[in-house]
Amino acid sequence: MTHGDDAPIASRDNPRFKRLRRLVEDASAYRREGLVWIEGDHLLRALLARGERPHVVVLTPQAEPLWHEIRAAAGLGADAVPLWRLTPALMGALSQLASPAALAALWPLPPAAVPEPEAPTVVLDRLQDPGNVGSILRSAAAFGFRQVLALRGTAALWSPKVLRAGMGAHFGLHLSEGLAADDLAALRVPLLATSSHQGEWLHRARLPWPCAWLFGHEGQGVQTALLARATRTLRIAQPGGEESLNVAAAAAICLHASAASRSATD
Amino acid sequence: MTHGDDAPIASRDNPRFKRLRRLVEDASAYRREGLVWIEGDHLLRALLARGERPHVVVLTPQAEPLWHEIRAAAGLGADAVPLWRLTPALMGALSQLASPAALAALWPLPPAAVPEPEAPTVVLDRLQDPGNVGSILRSAAAFGFRQVLALRGTAALWSPKVLRAGMGAHFGLHLSEGLAADDLAALRVPLLATSSHQGEWLHRARLPWPCAWLFGHEGQGVQTALLARATRTLRIAQPGGEESLNVAAAAAICLHASAASRSATD
Repeated sequence: MTHGDDAPIASRDNPRFKRLRRLVEDASAYRREGLVWIEGDHLLRALLARGERPHVVVLTPQAEPLWHEIRAAAGLGADAVPLWRLTPALMGALSQLASPAALAALWPLPPAAVPEPEAPTVVLDRLQDPGNVGSILRSAAAFGFRQVLALRGTAALWSPKVLRAGMGAHFGLHLSEGLAADDLAALRVPLLATSSHQGEWLHRARLPWPCAWLFGHEGQGVQTALLARATRTLRIAQPGGEESLNVAAAAAICLHASAASRSATD
Repeated sequence: MTHGDDAPIASRDNPRFKRLRRLVEDASAYRREGLVWIEGDHLLRALLARGERPHVVVLTPQAEPLWHEIRAAAGLGADAVPLWRLTPALMGALSQLASPAALAALWPLPPAAVPEPEAPTVVLDRLQDPGNVGSILRSAAAFGFRQVLALRGTAALWSPKVLRAGMGAHFGLHLSEGLAADDLAALRVPLLATSSHQGEWLHRARLPWPCAWLFGHEGQGVQTALLARATRTLRIAQPGGEESLNVAAAAAICLHASAASRSATD
């Protein structure tokens, strides 16, 4: 009996490794490959908890017991998912983390969600920072927003960095990206925007539900043509003065305010 | 007349360059050097707007007109701050940004603030992510919190990454780091903590002012010994279900709720 098939990939010239590397290093490679890089046991558990099954699991030999624990907990058989074994050195070379994960997966990119006109929605207008985008996806999921529409120029939603910051929120949301501003015309819910210098005070406003919140580029904010479509403009009270808020912080405040308004009318 | 003194540093072996490199690459080097790396014209303007003066300005020859515009706007004479000129290649080697800044400064690390017992306060318990820490400093400044106390194990507050994410909030706050949990005993304001599964609903609570908010480690939350000292525990309503929030998002919601409670009683 030979264990030859179980020997981990150890060469950087291995075609599987090269393919993984492209997926990890190029934030939008998933669009061409149709596969998403899911790094770490937290994301992988979140994926399995939704009843999803990865295309392949990528792991070091040392991480095999962990994988078998995770897949058994999710009700998957030992051979339900093919394994690609990598040496710890190659696995580390794939990671952008200081402490690389020993376990990852490739998962087929889900088809883009068709925007639902009446769903509670978050619109992202050219947000640049993957950490901000991931944080907003987490807040959207926590506060009951069901779909996220990303306009062209926003960081790639399924990139490794956005996935990491999203902590699994991706799997519970309907995501659609690469949209044009005109695509928002299909929304049948009030469109809410924030302003630093005008509008109703957010903490005194009674907010509509469902609604769509609009968040914009870290430096430039929401583009003017889009702001003009907003049904209402809300203002976050900042008694500290002129300081600006991080966009993900502002989004958390707005999405929570919607959830709080909603529970007040329940 | 010679322009020899104006020739930019072009060698990686130059002692000034090596010193800058240590400051930029080692997140806590500022503690040994007593100097903080202030990268980019936004942070530099924010520093000058507070009446502060850098120790030295580091720039490419191409950025000199920009510097003279900034220092003139701040009322500083042409020779008020010594200039260290670097070639664009060396300046780029110092930056961790995709688009390196052409302008930076060294600023003497301000003395650690002595904790004020009655100031509106944010306590950071071993937060790891520089982006989260910077975002919380921005929210603290925007919502009228005056001091930030970081317990040992929290990301270095004056590191380049935290400064970048803080967008200038550092300069308006009293910051103290490396504290032990027992140092919080000196606080004379109510200590508020969040919980995902118990406590009063934040959006229905009337919050005390001044107060101190406690935010903990991204994975582990606030340490148990510290939680036991909290005067009140608040809970953020999350109708989306079990999803967790990013700690900087949760902090933004809590600090905004304090500001809103305060303005409701004005």
